[in-house]
Amino acid sequence: MEFSSKLLEKAVGEMSQLPGIGKRTALRLVLHLLKQPKDQTRFLSEALLGMRENIKFCKKCHNISDVEICEICANDKRNHELICLVEDVRDVMAIENTGQYRGIYHVLGGKISPIDGVGPSQLTITSLVDKVNSGCIAEIIFALSSTMEGDTTNFYIYKQIKDTSVVLSTIARGISVGDELEYADEVTLGRSILQRIPFEIALKK
Amino acid sequence: MEFSSKLLEKAVGEMSQLPGIGKRTALRLVLHLLKQPKDQTRFLSEALLGMRENIKFCKKCHNISDVEICEICANDKRNHELICLVEDVRDVMAIENTGQYRGIYHVLGGKISPIDGVGPSQLTITSLVDKVNSGCIAEIIFALSSTMEGDTTNFYIYKQIKDTSVVLSTIARGISVGDELEYADEVTLGRSILQRIPFEIALKK
Ligand SMILES: [Zn+2]
Ligand SMILES: [Zn+2]
Repeated sequence: MEFSSKLLEKAVGEMSQLPGIGKRTALRLVLHLLKQPKDQTRFLSEALLGMRENIKFCKKCHNISDVEICEICANDKRNHELICLVEDVRDVMAIENTGQYRGIYHVLGGKISPIDGVGPSQLTITSLVDKVNSGCIAEIIFALSSTMEGDTTNFYIYKQIKDTSVVLSTIARGISVGDELEYADEVTLGRSILQRIPFEIALKK
Repeated sequence: MEFSSKLLEKAVGEMSQLPGIGKRTALRLVLHLLKQPKDQTRFLSEALLGMRENIKFCKKCHNISDVEICEICANDKRNHELICLVEDVRDVMAIENTGQYRGIYHVLGGKISPIDGVGPSQLTITSLVDKVNSGCIAEIIFALSSTMEGDTTNFYIYKQIKDTSVVLSTIARGISVGDELEYADEVTLGRSILQRIPFEIALKK
């Protein structure tokens, strides 16, 4: 692309650094900003900068937070002996949204991925092992996505905490509620058959 | 969406103001920035702000430019009696890319679109009419995208300049009706400029 302006080229160049945003899309977004009042660009820039400079992570669960201990970890009515192990803030938001979970979380900050250059030391695994060793945890629910990287990460963590009294569980994998069987992928369908649960238990939900 | 951080919420909120960027995508982009060095967010913010504050438009053709008169308008080797009428900078880039065109441009800055609240006064139509009346123009090639809005805009402009000696032509539609110029392949686009036809003939179709 040959740009008629260095300012335009630079803005498109930076915008297209974002994942999934190609040069064409970046140009479209940037031209949109040019048509809007200057304030919109200022608010966007300031919001991104402010977030990147000032964001904190909860000292306990490592979730994104504006305070030292997040609302969930600071809530005495939640079960602090039950930990749900997730990848990032989106998973916390998704699970909170169900209204079904009353334990707390441990946010790993990613998955072990040699391709993306993410090793165990970049995740909050040591902090999790410390929690387990402190003896205050009754159960850990593994809730990483079931990809190869998720499985690798699960197993890496499992090896470090399996010889403790902590109960280790994993969220049920199965056919989504309301989904037609014929459209489900075979791995999920197979697993949902092998890991079937008593009918009476399902009835109660 | 319930966010665990106001800083995160604000960044996602501003990001999702961009067209085609929903809340989920905005969250993904913002979380990506959090994993990158702070500099990346700073460069992005500064590039957007710098562009929005300092960008100029060529006094002659109204294309985005860092100087008062753009490179194309300042080029004596180009035919200044031949004007190609386009919607925005993307169309200029697309046509320049074909290497087929040696005239200059007039950038309208959009199309007449009551739905988007764009009226004739927000476009550079008066400036185009002034150019025509100055008597220095031999031919205008209409090259707006062939949508309903493009046709409306073409006709609005046509009515104001049809009673002059300026030749009015329109790029040949080897391009499918409804397609945006910027997505056309350069061979087709180049040919459609060379094989332009009189505006009145196009009107009858
Ligand atoms: Zn927390
Ligand atoms: Zn110019």
